[in-house]
Amino acid sequence: MAATSREFFTAKPVAEALSDFRPPHRTAPETVSLEEAAGRVPVADLIAGEALPGFDRSAVDGYAVHAQDTFGASESIPAYLTLTGSVAMGAPAGAELLAHSAVAVPTGGALPTGTDAVVMVEHTQEAMPGTIEVVRPVAPGEGIVRADEDVAPGNVVVRAGAPLLAHDIAMLAALGITQIEVHSRPQVTILATGDELVAPGGPLAAGQVRDALSSSVGALVLAAGGRPRSPQIVGDDPGLLHDALRAGAQGSDVLVICAGSSVGARDQTADAVAALPDTQIWCHGLAIKPGKPTLLASSNGIPIVGLPGNPRSALVVFRLLGMPIVRRAGGWTAEPHTPSTRRRLSRDLPSAAGRMDVVQVRLAGEQAEPIFGPSALLSVLTAADGYVIVPDDANGLPANETVEVFLYR
Amino acid sequence: MAATSREFFTAKPVAEALSDFRPPHRTAPETVSLEEAAGRVPVADLIAGEALPGFDRSAVDGYAVHAQDTFGASESIPAYLTLTGSVAMGAPAGAELLAHSAVAVPTGGALPTGTDAVVMVEHTQEAMPGTIEVVRPVAPGEGIVRADEDVAPGNVVVRAGAPLLAHDIAMLAALGITQIEVHSRPQVTILATGDELVAPGGPLAAGQVRDALSSSVGALVLAAGGRPRSPQIVGDDPGLLHDALRAGAQGSDVLVICAGSSVGARDQTADAVAALPDTQIWCHGLAIKPGKPTLLASSNGIPIVGLPGNPRSALVVFRLLGMPIVRRAGGWTAEPHTPSTRRRLSRDLPSAAGRMDVVQVRLAGEQAEPIFGPSALLSVLTAADGYVIVPDDANGLPANETVEVFLYR
Repeated sequence: MAATSREFFTAKPVAEALSDFRPPHRTAPETVSLEEAAGRVPVADLIAGEALPGFDRSAVDGYAVHAQDTFGASESIPAYLTLTGSVAMGAPAGAELLAHSAVAVPTGGALPTGTDAVVMVEHTQEAMPGTIEVVRPVAPGEGIVRADEDVAPGNVVVRAGAPLLAHDIAMLAALGITQIEVHSRPQVTILATGDELVAPGGPLAAGQVRDALSSSVGALVLAAGGRPRSPQIVGDDPGLLHDALRAGAQGSDVLVICAGSSVGARDQTADAVAALPDTQIWCHGLAIKPGKPTLLASSNGIPIVGLPGNPRSALVVFRLLGMPIVRRAGGWTAEPHTPSTRRRLSRDLPSAAGRMDVVQVRLAGEQAEPIFGPSALLSVLTAADGYVIVPDDANGLPANETVEVFLYR
Repeated sequence: MAATSREFFTAKPVAEALSDFRPPHRTAPETVSLEEAAGRVPVADLIAGEALPGFDRSAVDGYAVHAQDTFGASESIPAYLTLTGSVAMGAPAGAELLAHSAVAVPTGGALPTGTDAVVMVEHTQEAMPGTIEVVRPVAPGEGIVRADEDVAPGNVVVRAGAPLLAHDIAMLAALGITQIEVHSRPQVTILATGDELVAPGGPLAAGQVRDALSSSVGALVLAAGGRPRSPQIVGDDPGLLHDALRAGAQGSDVLVICAGSSVGARDQTADAVAALPDTQIWCHGLAIKPGKPTLLASSNGIPIVGLPGNPRSALVVFRLLGMPIVRRAGGWTAEPHTPSTRRRLSRDLPSAAGRMDVVQVRLAGEQAEPIFGPSALLSVLTAADGYVIVPDDANGLPANETVEVFLYR
């Protein structure tokens, strides 16, 4: 498919872009250990192969008993039971519990066969060696965690499609599931284009600027569970750009292009993307400020994100659209929540209807103070505590309106 | 300092424990590259050594001009300017701008000396080769990003004590700051104690349980920016426990003990902690449910977190207290925000005043449904979307009350 960018230049609403741009590519599965599993995304539901805790356990420090032997017990008329032994942590429970007898058990200890309740040690006294007094009755089942009370065999304990949380890992460890099939972390190629760009560590000649995006977009890729590959800077040469794009699209799960800032450079990027094999251009132009010149496409099912040339716009767009695209490639089926807080706007926020505005704000007491500045300024981002979204259908927001501020930290 | 645990068993409010337990230890600094810097915590404020963008740049695709040459220009009476050249991206701007002339510049291009405005290409026409027509006037400064408009030399661009965000990294890259001094990631030793414990991968005999905490607390340590060391299981033997604690406290930045579940095992842990060199026991007993038998202490300034024996309580406590302690050791000076949402309680939440309750909930439409179960059940955690906190001073919360649900994802 060959095409110039102009004919695709119809700005798409962000919500539509996010919900409908769904290149089919997902990363291949790989097997990881429990220690490596945090944040990784299982490819399939994980099923318990056994019960948990796996045996009837005591929920308290006390005595395994037959509940009926304690019925009617009180401080004034205690029940007397013969202490026939004790259970050690981690050891089998030993012989069956006899009538009118008790076995000492620690919290978590296995219960002798026949036990139907555990009396808390606080409700007993050792009257004389070998005999305990029970001063409160227990009901059947009291003080016991049943063998399958936590999990029964066959239960789904972890769902596919969401990153493993610490307590998911605890559950898998408890069940002895120590090898987990997860989506590989998406490999993300980041190409920065522009004759003016130099790597941040190198010398800087007149008119040049340092590549601010490779490492910072890389940081967002990492936060979305991906792996940024070694960054590459490509000059404004159609041939070089084409080769770099083709190599990037082949060897990666997501391809990100930080396009040059001029209209010419943007058109060149769009043309090079359109010339890739089996290309679908989803949108070139997004109804968002900053970030209008965003390009979303795919080649052989691999998603391609063309970011605006200026670093601030690019970071705003990559946070809102690029990170979800990386997560989807890595098998996520829903987006995580962003921390937020509600504040009142310190001043009017002008906006045109028909586009989403992302406005950086500083928190000041109960207020959110918008930070303005040309879209090229990074200091607007680094000074912000978070951002406010003015939705497509709003003609701005008035001062004192309560808004949701999405927080960076 | 030698002491038994009993005399310290006064339950401390969680807020007090969090705000006042501040062992002095912080990790040593190390130097990382930009690619490794995401989420790392700078040890000192980072200062710009130069201006950004560093030279006067064009903010648009257009023509560098003297603003006064365009005054009064309109569609009907355009200003005619001599096109004396063009600036390439990444190249020096060349000779000084002459009177009544213009130089073509791309967005981000360097401006010739003498330029005080840039006319957008959309407001011009190339009338004949070598001459442009300007059809709208520009004011001085229009279309220009000044050399120090983003950052002036000496500006603090990133503050110490908070993890580096993607846009902080963009700013550092733009300024050529490619080596950053950050706190080392806290090394966290996790000791699981209990004769009943076996490693999750091994065989399981009657009465034994798999160690669910080492890997899951390790996951929370990772999420707090720390490095969990190889997990260790220690039997309920005072000598072994003492040796393991002493080794752990010496070689780590934070020491975590997952204590046995019985009262005896807990006392043993407390005694072993108290016998460490230069120990301060901050609390043994926290006013929280689940999680009361939590121990906070330090040895030679290294924080020690003694978690309750049952995995669910331990994970609740480590999330609320352990992660902040790991972050502080790693140089964080404020806690990050947790994603949350507001829902109405589907039913009454009973609670005793004087303790904080952490109640797991499932989201169901506009409601938050509490999930109850014995504190030993991990499935209560894995079934939850988040948790609600019933504060110390509340006697429970009524059904239909709007509450903040802190979300796991």
